Amino acid sequence: MGRRPAIAIVGSGNVATHLALALDKVADVRQVCSPSAGHAEALASKLAACQAIINLSDIDPTVDFCIVSVKDDVVRKVAEALPVIDGIVCHTSGSAPMEALEPHGRAGVFYPLQTFSKDAEVNVAEAPFFIEATDDATLSRLMELAQSISRKVTKADSRQRAILHLAAVFACNFANHLWAISAEILGEHGIELDVMRPLLQATLDKAMAMPPAQAQTGPAARRDEAIMQKHLSMLAPEYAEIYKLLSKSIINYSK
Amino acid sequence: MGRRPAIAIVGSGNVATHLALALDKVADVRQVCSPSAGHAEALASKLAACQAIINLSDIDPTVDFCIVSVKDDVVRKVAEALPVIDGIVCHTSGSAPMEALEPHGRAGVFYPLQTFSKDAEVNVAEAPFFIEATDDATLSRLMELAQSISRKVTKADSRQRAILHLAAVFACNFANHLWAISAEILGEHGIELDVMRPLLQATLDKAMAMPPAQAQTGPAARRDEAIMQKHLSMLAPEYAEIYKLLSKSIINYSK
Repeated sequence: MGRRPAIAIVGSGNVATHLALALDKVADVRQVCSPSAGHAEALASKLAACQAIINLSDIDPTVDFCIVSVKDDVVRKVAEALPVIDGIVCHTSGSAPMEALEPHGRAGVFYPLQTFSKDAEVNVAEAPFFIEATDDATLSRLMELAQSISRKVTKADSRQRAILHLAAVFACNFANHLWAISAEILGEHGIELDVMRPLLQATLDKAMAMPPAQAQTGPAARRDEAIMQKHLSMLAPEYAEIYKLLSKSIINYSK
Repeated sequence: MGRRPAIAIVGSGNVATHLALALDKVADVRQVCSPSAGHAEALASKLAACQAIINLSDIDPTVDFCIVSVKDDVVRKVAEALPVIDGIVCHTSGSAPMEALEPHGRAGVFYPLQTFSKDAEVNVAEAPFFIEATDDATLSRLMELAQSISRKVTKADSRQRAILHLAAVFACNFANHLWAISAEILGEHGIELDVMRPLLQATLDKAMAMPPAQAQTGPAARRDEAIMQKHLSMLAPEYAEIYKLLSKSIINYSK
């Protein structure tokens, strides 16, 4: 990739936005396409020289990469509606298969294992990217593009990506929900979740420094039945059910 | 507290160890008492001028503070076996009531909301301490002692402490278990949990910057039934049950 590659991005959501901003430093992000003109323009205006478009048929067919960063279940439809591209078509989904891009001969997956929110700063360079492609030449091109914005780029097939996505649901989505429950319990007593921050940071650091199963603490880990019963009596039925199931699982795990 | 207070610590576990090390910089940690002489000596040897003892009856009754840092269910027994102390007797448990120290007239709770492991460095100064006491004078003395090692000291009664402890079980113990499950899923496919670190750090930062319920992402949050079914088919029954229950709860929450 001697010259800066030309890129079109389909989508204007969280992933599209953060990728566009990161890629704009190393490539010509030429077009952003979104059915919502306002969204497309908002994103394009943050980039060096980018055109906002609303029709997939207006994608410049001479781009080196067309990055489809849309909801998993519309990847296939978008791929079918795209014009034939000289370059590579890729999507950014953890769970859509590469085959969703089938009409395109040189295709691949460009999956950042990270959570993106529009308002939150994200260090793309630290996000691990997982790359899959239809052929070796396409794979190298996509790996090279990922390496231009991230220090952690790995090849992964659709099965491995599905495992990563499943593991991320537990580690990230479900953990976040437990924090939401924790915030609710505290909030009912006028306490802010922020009080938990040092504890949560230490818990995370520990889970990364040793296997988390080994770092497990708390009433279930030490089989403290009295405390578990007391906690269950303090909880609404829905949360009591979660408490019971996770405690049982912690006890099973340590057997 | 003009002069450095004299302290005896009962216990040699994780909390006792980290408190002793932090207090040793601002106080005279005079004694460490543990039924295991080896444990008592190991901890005492890390302190400036500390005696290792194995019998509670040998606790120096002239100390300003006797800190009982033992398992929740033995706090009461230890309190009953302690000699009469000139100073204050306190425990460090999130869930034992202050009344467990009843034989002692000036008593209190000195509860750090933090996870301590012997091998892991912990920044005690950033750990929030929650203090309860039998009377106002005792409360000020305990608050002052906590403020000498931590920047975040709050008064909390037994009920508030119970809420904090329950919330911490969800936020810390249960989240850690989800990371253990995530590590297991990845491990079966030869992937290290470390790949999740940027994602987990970003998830934590986001949950602290906005209400975590608002930061919720993933298949359940966007009601992606196809992905949820696919994930369930990939999981062992025990983990499928957890997946189902937490997904249901995420969907309920956002209603």
